[in-house]
Amino acid sequence: MRLSKSFWQTYKEDPSDAEIASHKLLVRAGLIHKTAAGIYSYLPFAVRTLQKIKNIVRDEMNKTGGQELAMSFVTPAELWQESGRWDAMGPEMLRIKDRKQNDFCLSPTNEETITDIFKKNVSSYKQLPVNLYQITTKFRDEIRPRFGLMRGKEFTMKDAYTFHADKACMDVLYDKYYQAYSNTIKRMGLEFIVVEADGGNIASGDSQTHEFQVIADSGEDTIVQAKEIDYAANIEKAQTYRAGLDFTDACDVEDIETKDKATCEEVCEMLGVPVYQSLKTLVFTAVYGEKEAHYMVMILGDDELNEIKLKNFLGADHVTVAKDVVLDQLGAPKGYMSPYKLEGKFTVIYDEAIDLDKSYIVGANKVDYHMKGYVPSRDTSGYKVADLRLAKEGDLGPDKKTPVEFRKGIEVGHIFQLGDKYSKAMEAGVLDQNGKNFFPLMGCYGIGITRMMAAAIEQHHDENGMIWPMSIAPYQVYFVAIAKSDEFKVIADEIYEELLSAGIEIIYDDRKSGPGPKFKDADLLGIPLRLTFGERDYKESKEMELKLRSNGEAVKVTKENTLEKIKQYIEELTPKV
Amino acid sequence: MRLSKSFWQTYKEDPSDAEIASHKLLVRAGLIHKTAAGIYSYLPFAVRTLQKIKNIVRDEMNKTGGQELAMSFVTPAELWQESGRWDAMGPEMLRIKDRKQNDFCLSPTNEETITDIFKKNVSSYKQLPVNLYQITTKFRDEIRPRFGLMRGKEFTMKDAYTFHADKACMDVLYDKYYQAYSNTIKRMGLEFIVVEADGGNIASGDSQTHEFQVIADSGEDTIVQAKEIDYAANIEKAQTYRAGLDFTDACDVEDIETKDKATCEEVCEMLGVPVYQSLKTLVFTAVYGEKEAHYMVMILGDDELNEIKLKNFLGADHVTVAKDVVLDQLGAPKGYMSPYKLEGKFTVIYDEAIDLDKSYIVGANKVDYHMKGYVPSRDTSGYKVADLRLAKEGDLGPDKKTPVEFRKGIEVGHIFQLGDKYSKAMEAGVLDQNGKNFFPLMGCYGIGITRMMAAAIEQHHDENGMIWPMSIAPYQVYFVAIAKSDEFKVIADEIYEELLSAGIEIIYDDRKSGPGPKFKDADLLGIPLRLTFGERDYKESKEMELKLRSNGEAVKVTKENTLEKIKQYIEELTPKV
Repeated sequence: MRLSKSFWQTYKEDPSDAEIASHKLLVRAGLIHKTAAGIYSYLPFAVRTLQKIKNIVRDEMNKTGGQELAMSFVTPAELWQESGRWDAMGPEMLRIKDRKQNDFCLSPTNEETITDIFKKNVSSYKQLPVNLYQITTKFRDEIRPRFGLMRGKEFTMKDAYTFHADKACMDVLYDKYYQAYSNTIKRMGLEFIVVEADGGNIASGDSQTHEFQVIADSGEDTIVQAKEIDYAANIEKAQTYRAGLDFTDACDVEDIETKDKATCEEVCEMLGVPVYQSLKTLVFTAVYGEKEAHYMVMILGDDELNEIKLKNFLGADHVTVAKDVVLDQLGAPKGYMSPYKLEGKFTVIYDEAIDLDKSYIVGANKVDYHMKGYVPSRDTSGYKVADLRLAKEGDLGPDKKTPVEFRKGIEVGHIFQLGDKYSKAMEAGVLDQNGKNFFPLMGCYGIGITRMMAAAIEQHHDENGMIWPMSIAPYQVYFVAIAKSDEFKVIADEIYEELLSAGIEIIYDDRKSGPGPKFKDADLLGIPLRLTFGERDYKESKEMELKLRSNGEAVKVTKENTLEKIKQYIEELTPKV
Repeated sequence: MRLSKSFWQTYKEDPSDAEIASHKLLVRAGLIHKTAAGIYSYLPFAVRTLQKIKNIVRDEMNKTGGQELAMSFVTPAELWQESGRWDAMGPEMLRIKDRKQNDFCLSPTNEETITDIFKKNVSSYKQLPVNLYQITTKFRDEIRPRFGLMRGKEFTMKDAYTFHADKACMDVLYDKYYQAYSNTIKRMGLEFIVVEADGGNIASGDSQTHEFQVIADSGEDTIVQAKEIDYAANIEKAQTYRAGLDFTDACDVEDIETKDKATCEEVCEMLGVPVYQSLKTLVFTAVYGEKEAHYMVMILGDDELNEIKLKNFLGADHVTVAKDVVLDQLGAPKGYMSPYKLEGKFTVIYDEAIDLDKSYIVGANKVDYHMKGYVPSRDTSGYKVADLRLAKEGDLGPDKKTPVEFRKGIEVGHIFQLGDKYSKAMEAGVLDQNGKNFFPLMGCYGIGITRMMAAAIEQHHDENGMIWPMSIAPYQVYFVAIAKSDEFKVIADEIYEELLSAGIEIIYDDRKSGPGPKFKDADLLGIPLRLTFGERDYKESKEMELKLRSNGEAVKVTKENTLEKIKQYIEELTPKV
């Protein structure tokens, strides 16, 4: 492509609303155009990269035996009502009305549509398994769209759905998808970690689910990893263990005046003891449909509650910190409360990290007073125990020996086992060998296509611009021609035409500007190879420079060996599975 | 693809809401799934055909020098307000509100977004021309979606937009697009006609525009064609000439009692004269923004008015038959009116087919009376003349000699010259050589991708099913294996594997059913080549049958020469430009 005849414009200034590298660079390098907040149009170079990402995804999907379909973007409310999600989904699902006032939504995902298609077409176990995928536009009405493509409203996603007669068949395909997703991201040249994850409201609580996280400092997800023992989990799900705890043996309770000291940290500092020797008392309200229940949740003084774990443990729709009015009714003074003599009013839940037979500092249930010597097993008559704490640095992995590391990741893929949630709710039963109706098990699998492009940039960029992995770069070679005389322009043209007709994906910077701006644009755009034809050098030595964007490595090439050398680099730099 | 392991289901019954062949067959052959009225999901075989259509379109677009981009599906109201179309577009444009109550629409087309992108990125004439295209989902909230994909609400379209410094440059690219569109449809193996068309409200009135019509009896468009003189136009636009008119010379006016005869036909029948010797008087109201004006429109008694021509001639937003109250105010009695002694109250417009110096039968402006001897040039003092009649069979083409034919077509493509309507309204000016601001001329070009698939079926089907042109068929070969013994199943498997690994796109019908259902499914799906392996025949002669879906031609092939023969047919059957 000759830049002199192309639509491409770069910018020196970062967009004012951009916080992360991919957002800044995608706009500055002329890859995306903001059409509205969280809504982008993809300019030609971005379309090329997206097409490459889609092709790799398609190829790996086809290897799992998947067939591509394309479901509608606008979905009728009826389908979502059948599954029960018309009400359950939050305002991220944009509901709209057509001119006849019928309800529709802009699909954020397509479990309902695929189950409807399945129901119409599949009636016997003999037709199973079914393995279908699509690469389509989705919409999520984010309240605060930000980070460019990372958390946009309109985005492109590959979503796949499978249907199975039994768990064994489900597991086989789930493993294939796990492998396909790993291969997909490897082929894009990105470092990633597969983590255990929480299923969210898409799956039933006990379903298996993994996230594929591309490692990047700007990632919104926190990954808890113990590489040596092959452990990795999203912090939402991670179950880790406290290291080096030394609790106080059981002793009698005793009040301590702690005026104006309402936190565990303040009280423990005053007493000169480690904060974990106190217990934090939290009152939470769990919502189950129209009903509510309150719980007193106890965690070590220096731990944080993982609300997702609490929600899952309680099987609630969601959980929130109890309102002040609830505490008032209980007579639980904020900052000074504990289950002591209040238990029975509601269920007490202790985090597993607490040794129930040791003694702790807790609130005394009167303002300005705490107490020490509180022993959970002795001082509460009825209680539950669960893993509720948020993993933190310094914790140990599942072997209780290996320390965990925290890393930041960008979720680009997610695979789920959904059970029969949708096939049952939408009555998509099929007949088994004995002619008896059963509800197939489902799996669903997503890869963010547009997010993948942004994640690649987050992982691969420097202060000068993007650094594309070869397999998903908009082009393979950026050819800078610095030629003033017609004679040398002709030579540059010849080199370009030769590489082009050899199938090299090449941008020819034949614009009328000096080497400075051209190099700047080349670095910003981050094409893996830069070939520079300088009239003066070429006149002297018949040589050009071929330079790697990633590490700056440069070699001299001649008109004769350029193609060969470029092919060699392309081969070397294309990530293998 | 082995059918025994695939997701595919055919149906015997036509869907109850289907009227035309493509709708019936796409559903029955398991290519599309109705998700809501006018909203379809595309099942795997359809996705393959759509992908092929897109690839041909892409290839031809790239040859024009076009670069692919992808604009957002959800567009903010602000852009449409800038162009003035937020109010001008009808309810087909589905307007929606996000969670913050901001206005958006589901894009039915993207002139506004592309102009916004252009405005941000292009500032100088040196960056022109710009040639961009996309292949994306569009939405049109049809009040009565019907004919399956033909008039659906959600559909896929390729739309392209170009920007130019002057008309000469615009014309060059317009011609390239004309050629690219012709090549595109040729490569899909479809018979089509390019016709002059009306620009509708997308373009300014004087802009050049052509439609690409695929010929099919079920087409909603009427094409007026005079092949010998290379003339074709949409009936909305067609300017043809009456043949064999013989008017009466001017004479004095004379009233005739015509009790209960309010139409030209009735009056002329009573008088025993040809209907064209009378004039039909129509009163129309033209709307210009907030203003209205009334016109008396005169056409030959046996002609029909072409309202689009009237609207364009008047430069109105739209035109409608005047309300009774308007006629009452004028004293024009319905069925008996004419300009006679009423003219001056408003403008009279005569159709060009009327010889103004001859005499005609017209209404006498009193109930139950007509008059003869009305001579337009004599009996109206001020009037206008314009081409306003609807072309009809029996007319002559532009040479006034060659008779026109009427054909039915499906509009699959449309190219427009838009002038500076959008660049001006949205202030997307650029600087010329002298540093002076000017508004570039725009072209826009659409191809219906999903509609093309339906049009191909409308043109190519028979009572047994679809008949795909080779270049856009979901697969090239449908391999029917009728083998009961393991020995012959192995041979069939080998043949399949050999063809598959040779790159043939092949469906292997290895399902456990007899030849009857397999042949029925093969005919319904309409794959161009059917290869049949029958155990009995193969045992005897070592031969299989290779049959063309289009004409039933069949040849015997052996395991050894099958691939060669198939390749030969694929080559022969692939449409060339």
